[in-house]
Amino acid sequence: MTREGNPAPPSARVHVCEYRVIYGDTDQMGFAYYANYLRWFEVGRNEYLRAVGYTYLRLEAEGIILPVVEAGCRYLRTAHYDDLLRIESWIEELGRVKVRFGYRICRNGEAEPLATGFTVHASLDPQSRPRRVPESLVAALRRFELEG
Amino acid sequence: MTREGNPAPPSARVHVCEYRVIYGDTDQMGFAYYANYLRWFEVGRNEYLRAVGYTYLRLEAEGIILPVVEAGCRYLRTAHYDDLLRIESWIEELGRVKVRFGYRICRNGEAEPLATGFTVHASLDPQSRPRRVPESLVAALRRFELEG
Amino acid sequence: MTREGNPAPPSARVHVCEYRVIYGDTDQMGFAYYANYLRWFEVGRNEYLRAVGYTYLRLEAEGIILPVVEAGCRYLRTAHYDDLLRIESWIEELGRVKVRFGYRICRNGEAEPLATGFTVHASLDPQSRPRRVPESLVAALRRFELEG
Amino acid sequence: MTREGNPAPPSARVHVCEYRVIYGDTDQMGFAYYANYLRWFEVGRNEYLRAVGYTYLRLEAEGIILPVVEAGCRYLRTAHYDDLLRIESWIEELGRVKVRFGYRICRNGEAEPLATGFTVHASLDPQSRPRRVPESLVAALRRFELEG
Repeated sequence: MTREGNPAPPSARVHVCEYRVIYGDTDQMGFAYYANYLRWFEVGRNEYLRAVGYTYLRLEAEGIILPVVEAGCRYLRTAHYDDLLRIESWIEELGRVKVRFGYRICRNGEAEPLATGFTVHASLDPQSRPRRVPESLVAALRRFELEG
Repeated sequence: MTREGNPAPPSARVHVCEYRVIYGDTDQMGFAYYANYLRWFEVGRNEYLRAVGYTYLRLEAEGIILPVVEAGCRYLRTAHYDDLLRIESWIEELGRVKVRFGYRICRNGEAEPLATGFTVHASLDPQSRPRRVPESLVAALRRFELEG
Repeated sequence: MTREGNPAPPSARVHVCEYRVIYGDTDQMGFAYYANYLRWFEVGRNEYLRAVGYTYLRLEAEGIILPVVEAGCRYLRTAHYDDLLRIESWIEELGRVKVRFGYRICRNGEAEPLATGFTVHASLDPQSRPRRVPESLVAALRRFELEG
Repeated sequence: MTREGNPAPPSARVHVCEYRVIYGDTDQMGFAYYANYLRWFEVGRNEYLRAVGYTYLRLEAEGIILPVVEAGCRYLRTAHYDDLLRIESWIEELGRVKVRFGYRICRNGEAEPLATGFTVHASLDPQSRPRRVPESLVAALRRFELEG
């Protein structure tokens, strides 16, 4: 699991979006609860796909689902109530029936991440059978990376 | 909204189940976050229906859904990490196309509630049209109340 | 509970912010889970206070906490994955030791709300004793309403 | 990250507890949302420590906190609404300033796991400085393993 501690590879285009931590995200230690980072990873990849011009809703409409088959997170520093987070997302691997996203969560205005992580997704049809990532999505991702 | 501050009416049979508060339920004030009480109300009514012998899964299988159309909660005292909660649930009203549940959340071993609340549910078919609460559910609820 | 079904009173200044529904907010009915609306009410009042120039963090730093003592929500229509929500928040009542917020949640671009609700907050000191809402907050709220 | 796909090592004593999946845990794919598994890992380790006779509350009272510094989960099969889950937890590593838990989540009555995972915790004092895992906890854990 060393990879996800690293920054995005130079070849990857990083998409950035923001999230404001609410009270409901914190726990009594005074920090954001650890499971919430996986919610923020979802925010990041949703907005990544929207920026690519290929929302997850569109994927579903085309008969593809991308359930998470693995996720991991390293918690380096703590996020606090009312922090404005910068969620960085990128594609780490694009296989035939698999996509891997990488993430970094930073406090806005800071360079050092609070957390880094990844999710691996299977590309499935609605009957949960492996199905190739659609060519149109691959093409859109390539265009997005080249524009970056 | 005075009703849900009151105990269950003497005519109602109260179902009791338990829930242990985790770190993820608390916020940085050191108490359980207010939205979680609505999750615990769901725990209560799920277990109520199971005790009646008519789980929500069975209702769905019979083509009935009971979405929440109104919910309310009074927060009287605070719940803390690792508290073992006693969730009390009962039926406050059983209409033709509507069910109203009442709830009390107590710390186990205490009489005074931490919170009281209610949810109102519409009885709908899968196309979201009003549909009478099934006679078999009404009969099961009546039996459950008489046994109590 | 008729009040919170109504729009904000003409005298109140309504603050608007946005939230994008994620997968983690939905449930298997395909709609946003009912407890999440209380999270969105929190988003609304956090941003309301920020717009007033008096964040909740500042209140806490001045020794005031505003725990929720009552909350209610009417669910009129359903919110879906990837909906961009418009959260409208306003002050319904400003008492000496109590604040009541009203909320409407709409799908962006639509006039009819998905849900309406309210929260009532006690003004307490860190030892949970009632403490008057600070004059500086009252003044900031009055200025905000007049500017509206 | 191969380790957490494996069953608990024969030397470890596995603690088992249960959790019932609610509607609020599911998403519109009809499965439990992936971040919730980290909540269930917390349920597992809380109950593990309670079984050891050394609750997390007691640790906090003794001036030790165990924040999560890394977490990972493999999602092998899907959990559904109303599933009764069996949460298996064990200690994978007990270092001087670090504890690693392993987990398996199964549907009750099934042998094949739905998910496997791990969390790594730093042992810190309230000022977030590394502090040795207390000897009394180490002794309690050793006793628990021997009794198993």
